[in-house]
Amino acid sequence: MYVYCDNAATTPLSKQAYDAMLPWLETGYGNASSIYRLAREAKVALEGARKTVAGCLGVAPEEVYFTSGGTESDNWALKSGAELGGGERRHIVISAVEHHAVVNTAEYLSKKKGYTHTEAAADKDGLVSAEALQKALRPNTALVSVIAANNEIGTIQPIEELAGLTKEYDKKILFHTDAVQAAGHIPLPLNGDVDMLSMSAHKFGGPKGVGVLYIKNGVKLPPLLHGGGHERGRRSSTENVAGILGLAAALEYMTSNREAFAAKVTKLREMLIGGILSTVPYCKLTGHREKRLPGTASFIFAALEGESLVLRLDELGVAGSSGSACASGSLDPSHVLMAIGLPHETAHGSLRLTVSHTNTEEEMEFVIRAVAAAAERCRAISPLWDINRPAASFLPYFE
Amino acid sequence: MYVYCDNAATTPLSKQAYDAMLPWLETGYGNASSIYRLAREAKVALEGARKTVAGCLGVAPEEVYFTSGGTESDNWALKSGAELGGGERRHIVISAVEHHAVVNTAEYLSKKKGYTHTEAAADKDGLVSAEALQKALRPNTALVSVIAANNEIGTIQPIEELAGLTKEYDKKILFHTDAVQAAGHIPLPLNGDVDMLSMSAHKFGGPKGVGVLYIKNGVKLPPLLHGGGHERGRRSSTENVAGILGLAAALEYMTSNREAFAAKVTKLREMLIGGILSTVPYCKLTGHREKRLPGTASFIFAALEGESLVLRLDELGVAGSSGSACASGSLDPSHVLMAIGLPHETAHGSLRLTVSHTNTEEEMEFVIRAVAAAAERCRAISPLWDINRPAASFLPYFE
Repeated sequence: MYVYCDNAATTPLSKQAYDAMLPWLETGYGNASSIYRLAREAKVALEGARKTVAGCLGVAPEEVYFTSGGTESDNWALKSGAELGGGERRHIVISAVEHHAVVNTAEYLSKKKGYTHTEAAADKDGLVSAEALQKALRPNTALVSVIAANNEIGTIQPIEELAGLTKEYDKKILFHTDAVQAAGHIPLPLNGDVDMLSMSAHKFGGPKGVGVLYIKNGVKLPPLLHGGGHERGRRSSTENVAGILGLAAALEYMTSNREAFAAKVTKLREMLIGGILSTVPYCKLTGHREKRLPGTASFIFAALEGESLVLRLDELGVAGSSGSACASGSLDPSHVLMAIGLPHETAHGSLRLTVSHTNTEEEMEFVIRAVAAAAERCRAISPLWDINRPAASFLPYFE
Repeated sequence: MYVYCDNAATTPLSKQAYDAMLPWLETGYGNASSIYRLAREAKVALEGARKTVAGCLGVAPEEVYFTSGGTESDNWALKSGAELGGGERRHIVISAVEHHAVVNTAEYLSKKKGYTHTEAAADKDGLVSAEALQKALRPNTALVSVIAANNEIGTIQPIEELAGLTKEYDKKILFHTDAVQAAGHIPLPLNGDVDMLSMSAHKFGGPKGVGVLYIKNGVKLPPLLHGGGHERGRRSSTENVAGILGLAAALEYMTSNREAFAAKVTKLREMLIGGILSTVPYCKLTGHREKRLPGTASFIFAALEGESLVLRLDELGVAGSSGSACASGSLDPSHVLMAIGLPHETAHGSLRLTVSHTNTEEEMEFVIRAVAAAAERCRAISPLWDINRPAASFLPYFE
């Protein structure tokens, strides 16, 4: 048995997406910006996909812009949003639990483009409170970006409340949310106060290399990519028709089954959380106990190194991750785990298991046994692991 | 019969690319930045594709960066290249015959970011001379961008000479070339003076939504997309494994057959050029007679409106284009046709037919008859078309 439990890194391509893509890889190769019949067919399909996505989000089709993925959407929202703020608004607010696509873009704007940015703090569950955001806002704030649901610990933010607060403070501040982990899995906070929202197809059964930036009507966001004037002049580049059709089909499938999938996935996740917490000593759940993505089970373990644990799990037949896939290669502890107050020496020992509706209860039982075995094995060879040594500074944290 | 003659807008996906992509859409869905086996397989495939591309270009694998397409590659080269120039170098040179992805990016940098840019003039064949480039260079030039082969008229630039001249003028000026139309079709000018080169998969039989920016070793180009640190920290975003594998397979196929394909395609193009010039009155070839892309046959017609001609051709069973696909929707005459000195009132009457190695001689004969019929038909209903009226100002141009 091999159980894929890293759906937050990427999902398999759904059958719905695959079937929607193939015709556009096989015979429907027209450039959607040309005008002959082959091209018009592509254009019609593209605009149909835009309507489908808009329908899933409950927004207007002209508010949907296709991009190359969540990273481009986040970069676009932050960089062009900052530009839209003009010369006077040189301040950006992000939360302390953002994806690197937001964190590193904000840092780039601060280091290279004359902006400053402030991080709104998160509490021990990863929640960003209205008070924390309020503290970070300034009269010269151009943009606020708060992740809809965190990619490492799954905590779901009160985006509508935070966006409302921002608009109450100053209507001119743009509010962006990175909904890359949320889209397709939970309802999206598009109540009117959110100006921009990022999505990535491969997090909900679509292909890699395609995403969406929702831009609310009336928000005159300048382009990030300049060129031929595609996407009504907002995002130039020949349209990735197959990818876009795949994205739309995947989102439609997930949206129309969202409640059933969420119920099933939540049950599987609870199996994982309950099973792992009761089987593995010195282990804690990270993220909010209830306000979390249906599929995200995230932990820290005392005296374990996440990467070793993931590799051992792989040998045992389970694909999981430590922190986010995107930050691999980095030796720094996760900024998200640090933000929720984990001791530095434990923040390396994280494990994220993310479940999909295609997983089964039998698989969860297998995963629990594998995690217990992997943790025991890794600790057996860890110089840090000596629970009989009362001086072990990290152990009290796990009591 | 329906003949696709718009391969410069996009090519069909080659069988080689399709076959290379499918496994990564079907079962190989791992995130190449994760560390378990499914992910490692994706990573190995991705790095294999990078080596393949590097081999085709004759460069080192670490000089190959995957992007979402030619537009992103061009935007990255120009914006980050300008940024790399630092505070003092605030001037950019482009040629007068660039793609919109370069033109509009240079204009953005000029209008919004405090740069100025100069256009190096092209001659009547679309060639940018050493003298024209020399005139445009300044002591504070940060970057030069000249298209390797034009997308509307097919003229091939002497890139190695222009890059050499730039480096002779000032080694610190970055030289970029947009090789979106050239890659896969003609040898690329990577002799050492070119610092950056843009490519797009769907122009040589690969999928839409994926491209390459070649960055010479030693050029410390900052990222355009910030985030998780993919592509060795240079281009963040989850890797589009299927698309990248498709790109590599398509490029390898085209590169290993380049000479044979170029010979075949040139012959077909010459059939088209000869046939159309001898059949349709008041018609001229645009672009250089010899220094042109193998597959590009481009014309202007007196008293014809390009879009009507393309629509009529479509009805007759031929897919062609007027100007570039990317600029559709614009009512301005092509800046490329204006740059090569065409009278304003004729620059609307352009037709571009772009041939591939899958076309046949029989198809070319069909296309020639269709163009003649379409031109006659469109002129018959054109208020401009009265060759007996000696006052028609545009006619002398076609004599």
